[in-house]
Amino acid sequence: MQPINFLLFQDFETLDAFGPAEILGSCEEFELRFYSVGGAAIRSAQGVVVQTQPLFAIDEGGVLLVPGGRGTRALVRDETFLQTLRALAAAAPFVLAVCTGSALLAKAGLLSGRRATSNKRAFDWAASQDPGALWQRRARWMADGKFYSSSGVSAGMDMALGFIADRLGRERAQALAAAIEYLWNEDRDFDPFSG
Amino acid sequence: MQPINFLLFQDFETLDAFGPAEILGSCEEFELRFYSVGGAAIRSAQGVVVQTQPLFAIDEGGVLLVPGGRGTRALVRDETFLQTLRALAAAAPFVLAVCTGSALLAKAGLLSGRRATSNKRAFDWAASQDPGALWQRRARWMADGKFYSSSGVSAGMDMALGFIADRLGRERAQALAAAIEYLWNEDRDFDPFSG
Repeated sequence: MQPINFLLFQDFETLDAFGPAEILGSCEEFELRFYSVGGAAIRSAQGVVVQTQPLFAIDEGGVLLVPGGRGTRALVRDETFLQTLRALAAAAPFVLAVCTGSALLAKAGLLSGRRATSNKRAFDWAASQDPGALWQRRARWMADGKFYSSSGVSAGMDMALGFIADRLGRERAQALAAAIEYLWNEDRDFDPFSG
Repeated sequence: MQPINFLLFQDFETLDAFGPAEILGSCEEFELRFYSVGGAAIRSAQGVVVQTQPLFAIDEGGVLLVPGGRGTRALVRDETFLQTLRALAAAAPFVLAVCTGSALLAKAGLLSGRRATSNKRAFDWAASQDPGALWQRRARWMADGKFYSSSGVSAGMDMALGFIADRLGRERAQALAAAIEYLWNEDRDFDPFSG
């Protein structure tokens, strides 16, 4: 099983992490693991307290998943965190950012010259982290090379299904969506929230 | 703030709890709290480990939320758990069951004579826990008195928004859905998974 390594931090957005966790964690090909810089209990912005492991234990062959949330506002100014993120992303075969998680990737310089998207209500802030990224305002999610990025919060679930479609086939993604009675927004260009 | 008391148990389904947690936890009127019978760390079926408090600390004025998941299969045979659930539900102003969480309410006798729904793939099993409940196969979610029940997994998010619409108004629910870029299935009778 390939690990899916969630990089959590204080005040991450609950569904950014646990929407994709539901979907990816229901695939027998993947195994979910939860990490944070300090390896402590991490509290989401909505008050879920999750146990995490410290990063030195991480299996770098795993897919890296970075949620967004109001905790990103401090982290874009945390050079130690950004350096850690750069090293983790360099080693990972795929990097999935949900919502303002893409602001962290951008500030770490990982999205320069790459197509990416982010939360629509924080879009300008996210985009300002690296004007050299090819920001797409109208997109449910984007994939460019090994980097995936989604629009706000619930779009992470559509991206997770899109990632599974790319890796394991579209029928598998459709079956997973049906099993959780989820109406998958399968068209990554359909974005009713881009206004 | 009114507490939303999540009753967690080993092998609960991740999104059953954390989909509604995202939505209800984003309302300033509510405060999320997570409980389990033993008050220990609880692992979801997908591998998220959450800190919970023991039940003796619960604020009974809070809304009770019961997720489903494969952990319910053992709990319908656990008379001590069912008795606890009866007491918690009796005290709560509202009881929200997601997915096969309604099987637990049914087995505890709480849904007799009430309209309720459940996960479509486990529907017959859930319904068999109390044939005296008025089971509705075609429904995204149901409300009867203080008891709400939803279809499978992701339907819990639609129900949470429906609960907010009932309590705080439809516009508030629509604004919350838009903020997390979620396409709310607002019609509780629309159920494409009821086959």
